[in-house]
Parts: sequence; structure tokens; C-alpha cells
Amino acid sequence: MKTPYYAVIFTNMQTEDTNGYAEMAEKMEELAKQQPGYLGFEHARSDLAITISYWESLEAIKNWKANLDHLEAQKLGKERWYQWYKTRICKVEREYEFSRE
Amino acid sequence: MKTPYYAVIFTNMQTEDTNGYAEMAEKMEELAKQQPGYLGFEHARSDLAITISYWESLEAIKNWKANLDHLEAQKLGKERWYQWYKTRICKVEREYEFSRE
Repeated sequence: MKTPYYAVIFTNMQTEDTNGYAEMAEKMEELAKQQPGYLGFEHARSDLAITISYWESLEAIKNWKANLDHLEAQKLGKERWYQWYKTRICKVEREYEFSRE
Repeated sequence: MKTPYYAVIFTNMQTEDTNGYAEMAEKMEELAKQQPGYLGFEHARSDLAITISYWESLEAIKNWKANLDHLEAQKLGKERWYQWYKTRICKVEREYEFSRE
């Protein structure tokens, strides 16, 4: 990825109601990948879950947020799956990488 | 936190050598908290580990990166613990939050 680009950091804690969650998460990951301006995806979960999606522009993020299937997922998330979440829209200014030989 | 502020997204995959890692990670988290301009910390681990630290300014990030104890930890990380990592320096432009009643 070539800087600058954008990141959406989605940090959350789930409720005990996980019914339908894994299915929806997978569906949204697949759908995100099909959106214009999508660059990548990272996810990890401990007590806290962190999902980061990377995008070419703020416009691409805005369009993804307003996607109808994604809006339905966001609604269900608030109703059922999330105890708490925080979403941060970030501009990635610099990056560097290390890889073992 | 009041935007804009800064985030360091540190994504990594570990080697099989975890000797000393947990101790060092805890020590570095404690040390980061004592640095000027430190705002917060989030961590989650699955196959991938994501650690995000939040800072008031690029200057604060630069100082933390150059901290002597932290430099030693970074060196050991490359020698022993990390198979791969990527560090992204980001400006957090907007954020919103949801909390269940």
C-alpha cells in the first residue's frame, strides 16, 4: 500500500449474544473486499476485538458505511452483538515493515 | 480523546520463540504509559496480533520510538519474537462510539 491511505479502526467488546455474528462478520468481510477503494483487512480478538480495514480514500469509507447490507449489519450489531464499540477514521501517513529472512 | 490525535498500528506475527516475550510486552506497555503525550493502548491477538497505541503528537511517537529501553525491546523483537511486523503511523481524524444502555 502506498501512503497516504486511510484506516478504519473498529474496536469492540461483544455481548453474550453471539447468535448469527460469525456468519455476518464473514459476509461483511467478503462484501467489503468487493467495494471500490478497498485495500485490506486485519483482525484480532482477545477480550477486546480489533478490526481494521484499509481504504484508498475517505470517499470509499463513506460509501462502505452507507452500503445497504452493511447498514443492516450495523443495526443488528447495535441491537445484539456489541456491548461497546469505537470507530476511528485515520489517515495512514507512514509505514514500515519487517520480515524475517 | 479529542481529534486529531495519532495512532501507531503495530500488526505482527510471532515466531515460535516466545521466551521472554510476555514479560517484555508488559514492561513496554507500562513504560509507554509513562511517556509524555501517551493517550492509550489497545491490544488483541488471534493468529495475528494487533497493538495500537495512541499519542497526542508525532513528536511523542518519535520520542517513544527512540526511548533506549524501547530500542532494546525492538532489537530483541527482530532477533527473536517477530516473524513479520508492520507499523503504521496514522492521524486519527474522526471517531465515534457506541455504548449499550
